[in-house]
Amino acid sequence: MMQGRQVQPAAAADVRRPARVPVPPPRPFLCTVGASVKETLFPDDPFRAVAREPAGGRRAMAVLRYLFPSLGWLPSYSFADLRSDVVSGLAVASLAVPQGVSYARLAGLDPVVGLYSSFVPALVYAALGSSRELAAGTPAVVALLFTSMMSAAVSPTLEPQLYGSLVFTATFFAGAFQAALGVLRLGFLVDFLSQAAIVGFMAGAATVVCMQQLKGFLGLPQFTRSTDLPAVMASVFSQTADWHWQPFLLGAGLFLLLQITKYIRKKRPKFFWISAGAPLVVVIFSTVLVYLINGEKHSIQTIGTVKKGINPPSVQRLILSSPHTWLAAKTGILTGIISLAEGSAAARSFAMAKNYHVDGNKEMIAFGAMNMVGSCTSCYVTAGTFARSVVNRDAGCRTAASNAVMAVVALITLLFLTPLFQHTPQVALSAIIAFAMLGIVNLRAVARLWRVDKVDFFVCLGTYLGVVFGSIAVGLLVGAGVLILRVLLSVARPRTTVLGRIPDSTVYRRMDQYTMAQRTPGVLVLRIDAPVYFANASYLRERITRWIDGEEDRIKAAGGEESLRCVVLDMGAVGCIDSSGTKMVEDLKNSLDKRGLQIALANPGSEIMRKLDISKVLQFIGDQWIFLTVAEACDYAHSNCKIQTELQSVASPDEMV
Amino acid sequence: MMQGRQVQPAAAADVRRPARVPVPPPRPFLCTVGASVKETLFPDDPFRAVAREPAGGRRAMAVLRYLFPSLGWLPSYSFADLRSDVVSGLAVASLAVPQGVSYARLAGLDPVVGLYSSFVPALVYAALGSSRELAAGTPAVVALLFTSMMSAAVSPTLEPQLYGSLVFTATFFAGAFQAALGVLRLGFLVDFLSQAAIVGFMAGAATVVCMQQLKGFLGLPQFTRSTDLPAVMASVFSQTADWHWQPFLLGAGLFLLLQITKYIRKKRPKFFWISAGAPLVVVIFSTVLVYLINGEKHSIQTIGTVKKGINPPSVQRLILSSPHTWLAAKTGILTGIISLAEGSAAARSFAMAKNYHVDGNKEMIAFGAMNMVGSCTSCYVTAGTFARSVVNRDAGCRTAASNAVMAVVALITLLFLTPLFQHTPQVALSAIIAFAMLGIVNLRAVARLWRVDKVDFFVCLGTYLGVVFGSIAVGLLVGAGVLILRVLLSVARPRTTVLGRIPDSTVYRRMDQYTMAQRTPGVLVLRIDAPVYFANASYLRERITRWIDGEEDRIKAAGGEESLRCVVLDMGAVGCIDSSGTKMVEDLKNSLDKRGLQIALANPGSEIMRKLDISKVLQFIGDQWIFLTVAEACDYAHSNCKIQTELQSVASPDEMV
Repeated sequence: MMQGRQVQPAAAADVRRPARVPVPPPRPFLCTVGASVKETLFPDDPFRAVAREPAGGRRAMAVLRYLFPSLGWLPSYSFADLRSDVVSGLAVASLAVPQGVSYARLAGLDPVVGLYSSFVPALVYAALGSSRELAAGTPAVVALLFTSMMSAAVSPTLEPQLYGSLVFTATFFAGAFQAALGVLRLGFLVDFLSQAAIVGFMAGAATVVCMQQLKGFLGLPQFTRSTDLPAVMASVFSQTADWHWQPFLLGAGLFLLLQITKYIRKKRPKFFWISAGAPLVVVIFSTVLVYLINGEKHSIQTIGTVKKGINPPSVQRLILSSPHTWLAAKTGILTGIISLAEGSAAARSFAMAKNYHVDGNKEMIAFGAMNMVGSCTSCYVTAGTFARSVVNRDAGCRTAASNAVMAVVALITLLFLTPLFQHTPQVALSAIIAFAMLGIVNLRAVARLWRVDKVDFFVCLGTYLGVVFGSIAVGLLVGAGVLILRVLLSVARPRTTVLGRIPDSTVYRRMDQYTMAQRTPGVLVLRIDAPVYFANASYLRERITRWIDGEEDRIKAAGGEESLRCVVLDMGAVGCIDSSGTKMVEDLKNSLDKRGLQIALANPGSEIMRKLDISKVLQFIGDQWIFLTVAEACDYAHSNCKIQTELQSVASPDEMV
Repeated sequence: MMQGRQVQPAAAADVRRPARVPVPPPRPFLCTVGASVKETLFPDDPFRAVAREPAGGRRAMAVLRYLFPSLGWLPSYSFADLRSDVVSGLAVASLAVPQGVSYARLAGLDPVVGLYSSFVPALVYAALGSSRELAAGTPAVVALLFTSMMSAAVSPTLEPQLYGSLVFTATFFAGAFQAALGVLRLGFLVDFLSQAAIVGFMAGAATVVCMQQLKGFLGLPQFTRSTDLPAVMASVFSQTADWHWQPFLLGAGLFLLLQITKYIRKKRPKFFWISAGAPLVVVIFSTVLVYLINGEKHSIQTIGTVKKGINPPSVQRLILSSPHTWLAAKTGILTGIISLAEGSAAARSFAMAKNYHVDGNKEMIAFGAMNMVGSCTSCYVTAGTFARSVVNRDAGCRTAASNAVMAVVALITLLFLTPLFQHTPQVALSAIIAFAMLGIVNLRAVARLWRVDKVDFFVCLGTYLGVVFGSIAVGLLVGAGVLILRVLLSVARPRTTVLGRIPDSTVYRRMDQYTMAQRTPGVLVLRIDAPVYFANASYLRERITRWIDGEEDRIKAAGGEESLRCVVLDMGAVGCIDSSGTKMVEDLKNSLDKRGLQIALANPGSEIMRKLDISKVLQFIGDQWIFLTVAEACDYAHSNCKIQTELQSVASPDEMV
């Protein structure tokens, strides 16, 4: 019967309106699924390059190029490329070698493992990496994570063998996890670690690591392995008797030197190589000095003998069945995520600066391969690190080949130069670490967060405090928790706003934003600013009802205005709707009918139209109450409402339930 | 310098455009927080009624009325109200008493506890409840949850005392949890249990419960307490020897009787009292029958003696320090959520039908009070249940007073009538339970889910299978998991669409939806359909870049068209933006500059404008490239782009970084 009643006004509406809102033809379920899966997992259409090629040999070649990006640049690799790659490779190596040794110690590992980790993974990345600037290496945070998460269970000093095996196992898990994410194209999950959280996390880690370097600076014999500030402070001040001024003096001097080179580099960017080479200089200088003045006598601890020779295989050391395996897996997955976050962020920003595209998921596979191969060749978790990549870029690298060059240098070091480290003072490494760590504290980013978005700032702060006073895990939980909560809130509490007409135009805009916007008498225009589904359907129903109550109160208070007759919902911003959503619209229509109010929808998207159509809500509202624009809805409502509402209120009883 | 360059075109733009997009004045952080907190926690503005009153006595009265809704209707309570409330109260009671006894047994409790639970909590709700139709009682699902979660740890048959105490403790936790949610106004969290999940969950629970009733129907001596289908079936078919035909015959007959009354009620709604009274009739009839034919002889098990007298206090029985406390807490919180979901859904739908408003959070506080008081007076978890509330409404109740009437009837039963239950056959209760359970299987809703939203359907199915073949908890996890994942996905992968101009209008609409929409030569109009923040910023950047690549390929392929010069982003649907979002826009502007493309924003909301302004991105893009409507943006771009892009590409170097 309702249908019958509508024919006439619907026809009238047709005449009145230039374009109608089409209901898309029903698509088979699988198509929809297919489309959304493609959009979710392959948003960047990674296989376009392959698809372009004609089938056959050339396509096979394209597939290979896709799998091994190095095949992309190798054929056209010129001597000029080689030269600049060698230069940048050397620059990175001069930073990588001392850093490798330092971070290995930070991770509670034999220094040589750091060198191993600069060799094999770098080669792997040279073959698989799709970023030109990224330089493979161990992020300091990863080293920190290893000590903080595993040294509690297994002491690196008492059972170094077991600890080492655990580290390799964790590295394997990290690699497997990263590769899995990449293959399943779930890279977007990493995006849920927002920049705010990462900034806070990095700063917190830096603080903790710097504090731990007091061991080296003060030449303390033993030290706590727990990472939280209170514990570290306690262990520092519990052994004031063992404080030594000599290592502190040396360390402070070296630290100052590094800072100066950094300053020079800021002033004169062309002299990047000064700061790039500085760590190496520091190591050499301090080693020679300690050797000459026979530092051990002055209680300056040195690294001691470092193994010689190339990476020994470590497959047999992977622990896949022991009480510790679970711990290794946890550590691996966490470090995997963190290094991914840093690595892909770095790759992305460099690619953007040079305006080319890196496939995040492919990078993940590359990192995964690095770590899985690494775990079998005595390496621990590696990724692309910011510090090294910056050096690499400034040195003018052209392709991932610079990683290969770095690997060669690391190899040479391993084969011939390790004995030279014997007299390297630990405080030198501490200075290098502390310097590098202070470098990753990004105060400008924090200031920006505070300026732009307070919530983000507090996410950042919370993460920082969590890391510094709790533990790495606590910090991450705080950050992620707040962010997830924020997402859920933004979903559960979408904004609804009243729209008004901009004078002498057909444009409707938010009245709270545009002061000049004017109400259409007798019509309330509401705009819903989010997808309508289970999480917010009931809220939206209540909120809209409240808007209507408020409007009616206002009209009463004002007096003289014509009473409310129609509510227009601007669905333009409603991206999708689910069954709870359509139910909500239906309920709203019902309760508005009871109040003798007409409901009209403006500019619903095709998904919305389809859902409303198959859920029969479209027919219930009446086809002629769906409009292309808010303006049309208002005009039509203004002229047709009176009659319509009476009909409705008569008709409503038998439409109930 | 950039500013300087902009003055002239900006002025030109002013002339061209009727209205500009205003940048809202910066608001103090606390105001923003306050506003959003209010919107999040008090969306329905619960204190409006109080705020309206003038300060002093009348406002105090309003506060009291707010706390005790009963004070709202008591003053104007007429004899007519009383009469209809008494009638409906009796109707509910005639259902509540047998149901109470049945569900208590289902929960592994002494039948009398069911009667206790129909007495005290009903009184509490009469005072605190703000729904007129809701009738307090124990949802069958809650009873099921208790057995399935706790009987594994403590056997109700072997240690009934301890089990009882555990139940009361769980009830206390449930109440405390519900009250806390209500006071903290976190009611919206319950909305994350979507209707789809609840339908599936209820159906699953019903299936499981019905299966368990085979014990009563077959008169089996012992039975498994685990709820999953396989276990139940195993335990049924493991004791085929003990199957009895007499109880089955009786049970089947009673079940049939109930079904008939239901059918009558469907045909003739005015005879609701037939189906309302049916369970009572079933109990009385079967009791008399069993008494006459001396059913025990025919292996028809009876309830046996039921304690007499009013609720004994049970405060001393609460276990707050024992290994079991954690279990009790878990069960309590879960049952609390479930009963909330059912209760508030019921309250909401009834209120909507009669077009008045219930404050969900206030309902939670009422439920919480019911359970906390109940836990101290030998009651287990209660809430507003659908079945009873429907009877209550059909019986024409006017206020929550009908609950008080029901309580009085329960009281009388407790004081005088319990002995009559002695000969009531267990199979009668089984029949009542099975009947009630089949009633809550909502096949029409399932069909609707399949029709409207496949994802919801699979959520529903998953929850159902989880409950039936796994456990209650598994089912809930499946449902909630899928839903949260869906939310995160919809946030991480927002839709971006290309807009085209509807012929002879200034309206721009999605080209995939409106076939008649036309491109503006040289301009690509993209629309972002979601808030832009950390979770989707990097995705959006890549996706937009891909749209541009695609467009340029298309133009090349087509040939003859003028090349792309400007990209217009329709920000109308972007509800909010965070620091990652503004960074995204900035990066986009940078990379577009490199490609010699101009970027323009159309219709950004005030939040967006504020964020873009304080993050200096607005100035970077250039004030004159922000437009009120897409149409203006396109026209302006079409006429001004050439010059602009040249300027940009000249200026870009010193704007970089």
